[in-house]
Amino acid sequence: MASPYTVAYMFPDAKSVGSVSAFRTKPMAKTDVDLIVTYCGVCHTDVHFIDNDWGMSRYPLVPGHEIVGHVTRVGTEVKELKVGDQVAMGCVAQSCYKCECCQKGRDNLCADRRFTYFHDTTDETGTHRHMGGFSSFMRTDYRKLYKVPRGLEQNHVGPLMCAGVTVFEPIRNLLGDSLDGKGKTIGVLGIGGLGHLALQFVSKTGATAVAFSRGKKKEEFTKFLGASYLVDTTNADAMQAAYGTLDQLIVCTSGGTFECDKFLPLVKPFGNMHLCGIPDAPITFTAQLLVFSRISISGNPTGGSTDTKLMLEFAAKHGIEPIIEEFPHSKAHEAIQKIRDGTIRFRAVLKNDLVDVEETLTALNNGYVKL
Amino acid sequence: MASPYTVAYMFPDAKSVGSVSAFRTKPMAKTDVDLIVTYCGVCHTDVHFIDNDWGMSRYPLVPGHEIVGHVTRVGTEVKELKVGDQVAMGCVAQSCYKCECCQKGRDNLCADRRFTYFHDTTDETGTHRHMGGFSSFMRTDYRKLYKVPRGLEQNHVGPLMCAGVTVFEPIRNLLGDSLDGKGKTIGVLGIGGLGHLALQFVSKTGATAVAFSRGKKKEEFTKFLGASYLVDTTNADAMQAAYGTLDQLIVCTSGGTFECDKFLPLVKPFGNMHLCGIPDAPITFTAQLLVFSRISISGNPTGGSTDTKLMLEFAAKHGIEPIIEEFPHSKAHEAIQKIRDGTIRFRAVLKNDLVDVEETLTALNNGYVKL
Repeated sequence: MASPYTVAYMFPDAKSVGSVSAFRTKPMAKTDVDLIVTYCGVCHTDVHFIDNDWGMSRYPLVPGHEIVGHVTRVGTEVKELKVGDQVAMGCVAQSCYKCECCQKGRDNLCADRRFTYFHDTTDETGTHRHMGGFSSFMRTDYRKLYKVPRGLEQNHVGPLMCAGVTVFEPIRNLLGDSLDGKGKTIGVLGIGGLGHLALQFVSKTGATAVAFSRGKKKEEFTKFLGASYLVDTTNADAMQAAYGTLDQLIVCTSGGTFECDKFLPLVKPFGNMHLCGIPDAPITFTAQLLVFSRISISGNPTGGSTDTKLMLEFAAKHGIEPIIEEFPHSKAHEAIQKIRDGTIRFRAVLKNDLVDVEETLTALNNGYVKL
Repeated sequence: MASPYTVAYMFPDAKSVGSVSAFRTKPMAKTDVDLIVTYCGVCHTDVHFIDNDWGMSRYPLVPGHEIVGHVTRVGTEVKELKVGDQVAMGCVAQSCYKCECCQKGRDNLCADRRFTYFHDTTDETGTHRHMGGFSSFMRTDYRKLYKVPRGLEQNHVGPLMCAGVTVFEPIRNLLGDSLDGKGKTIGVLGIGGLGHLALQFVSKTGATAVAFSRGKKKEEFTKFLGASYLVDTTNADAMQAAYGTLDQLIVCTSGGTFECDKFLPLVKPFGNMHLCGIPDAPITFTAQLLVFSRISISGNPTGGSTDTKLMLEFAAKHGIEPIIEEFPHSKAHEAIQKIRDGTIRFRAVLKNDLVDVEETLTALNNGYVKL
C-alpha cells in the first residue's frame, strides 16, 4: 500500500511563491516517529533555501527546521518516545551515529549528517527526501527528536531549536557544562533573532553580557534582555574603551559584509570571536590583529544533540523566551516577506492550520492514534 | 659615572646597510643582568624591523631576539641567576608581572609587554630603549632570561627562542601540558624556518605529523624531520584526500597572500587552523567553510614564559635541533641577504665576533667578572 499524502506549504521552484500542496509521505521505518506539527519557526536560512542562495536546494521544497509537535505514532523499535509526547526537532534529520562527532553528541558535524529538508535519509524502507516543518505532519527518525521540558511555551520551542542552540553552543564551548559564566565578559553583536536570545543565555550564566549595536536605541531593550551595558558600534571612543574586554564576542549579524577588523580588538588574549551568522561576502581580516593578541575566530552550524538537550533544559530553567510573531502555516509567505524586509521582531513562528490540530490532539488524549 | 659603550651591529636608518658601531649601555638596575652574547639567531621579523615594514621600528636599531649567552654580572636583587649561567632570551624584554596574562605565564600577551628591540623598558634607573642581540653584551631584566637546559647546543638555542616557541605554543595549547599527541593528526604547512621545527615538535609528541608543501621534493627531508607523510599542496586529489583529517594545521608560511579557503577544509570539526607566520596581504575566507565545519582560526605572537620553559625542556629531552647557517656578528648583512632571498636553510645564527668571547668565558670560569 502506498503511503498517504501529507499537506504542507511547499515551494515548487527557486524563488517561487509557495502554496499549500501535498507530498507523499515516506514509508514508516522501525525507527520512525510520526508527529503532528503544532508550530514551526521560520529562520533566515529557510529563506536562503527557498531562494536557492547557496545552490543546495531541491524542489519541491518544504522548508522549516524549528519544529515542535506531538507524537502520533511510533515505529516498532522506538522505546524512548510514546504517543502524545511533546517533541522538538532542529536542523539534523539523520547522522551516522558511529563517528567521533556522533559519539560526542556533535551529530550536527557528522560527515554524513542529513539536514532536515535538503537531504535524503536512508533506512530499511529505502532512501527518501526529508521534508521540513512547514508541513502538517512529519515522519522522521526518533533519534533526532528531543522531548520538550516542562516550562517552555509551545510556540517558543521552535526558535530555540535553531536560533537558540546556535548561540548556546559557543557559550557552552567557552564555559563548559557548568555554564558558569561568573568572571567572564561575553559580547553579543547584532540584536536580532539570534542576538536577543544570545543576550538572555549569556546573562543567565552569570557572565557580564555586553550588547553591541549601531546607535543607542536598543539600550533599554538589551538591558531588559540581561545586558549589563550597550556599546554603540558607531561611536569610536566607546568601541576603543571596550578593546580587550571580551572573553568572547558572539557575532549574530548576517548578510552583507562583516567588518572583522573593527571588532577583533574587542577580544582579550586567548579570547574568541565566534560567528553565529553568515555574511554574504567573504570575511577579510588583518593577520596581525589575530596573531599579536592570540585571538581565535570560529563559527558553528547550530548545535548537536548534547547542546540541544542542555539548551532546552537551560532555557526552561531560566525562562529564556524568544520574542516571536505568529503566522498560520497557510500564510508562511507573510512571515517570509517580513524576514526578507528585516522587519520581523524577532523570530517568525508558523502555527499549523493545515489540518485540525485540536481534533488530533483531542483524539490523542482520548487514546485514538491518527495515521 | 656614565655607562660604558657596548659594541653591536647597528642600523642607522630604515633599509640602511648595517655596520659595527656602539651604543651607550643603560645604567644597571637592581633586577638587571649583564650577559655576553655567544650566538643570536636572525629571524625574518628582524628583517621586517630593519626595513621598518610595520612602521614600528626605531633607529639606530640593534635587532636580534633569539639570544643566548652567559651571565657576566647580576644586579643586587637577582637571586635566580648567577655569573656564568648560560641563559637565553626571546622577544619579550619586560612586562607588567601583575596582569592575568603575566600571572598565567603568557607575558607575551601582556598589554604592557615590551619587545626586545623596539620598545623602552623602565626601572629605577629610568626609561631606556632596549637593544637586541646583534650586540656583544646585553643588560636586561633577569625575569625575561631563561636558563638553558643541558643537552642543547649553544648555537641551536637562539632559533628555539622565537621560531621554536612560536610553533610549540599552538601544539601545547592543543595537547595541554602532557604534550601527549597520541591519536591526533597535526599538519604543518610550509617547511622552512618555522615548519622544520614544527614537524620535529609535532612528531615528538606522538601525534601523526603531516607535512604540506608545494611538490614532492621535500618528501624525504620531511620524513627525516618526523613527518609520517607529505601532501603535495599543488595536487588537488591529494589535498582532497586530506580533507577533514587534521586536528590542527600549523601555518608556517609567511609573506605574500595566504589562500585560506584552500586549506580550511583540511581541518576536522572542532579543529584549528593556526597562523604562526604572517602574510603580507589581509586574509580572506569564506564564512561557510569555517562555520559549517566548526573550525577555528587562530594565531600567536611567539610564546610566553611558561611555553618558553616547557619548549626548552622538551627540545633538550627530545633532541629537537634547528638546521642553521652560521655567520659572524660582523657579517650580519650576509645572513640578512640570504633571508631576503629566501635561500637560508633554515635559520641564520650569528656568532659573536665583536668581542673576544673566549677570553671573557675563560675569565668567567676563573672567577673574574667582566663589566
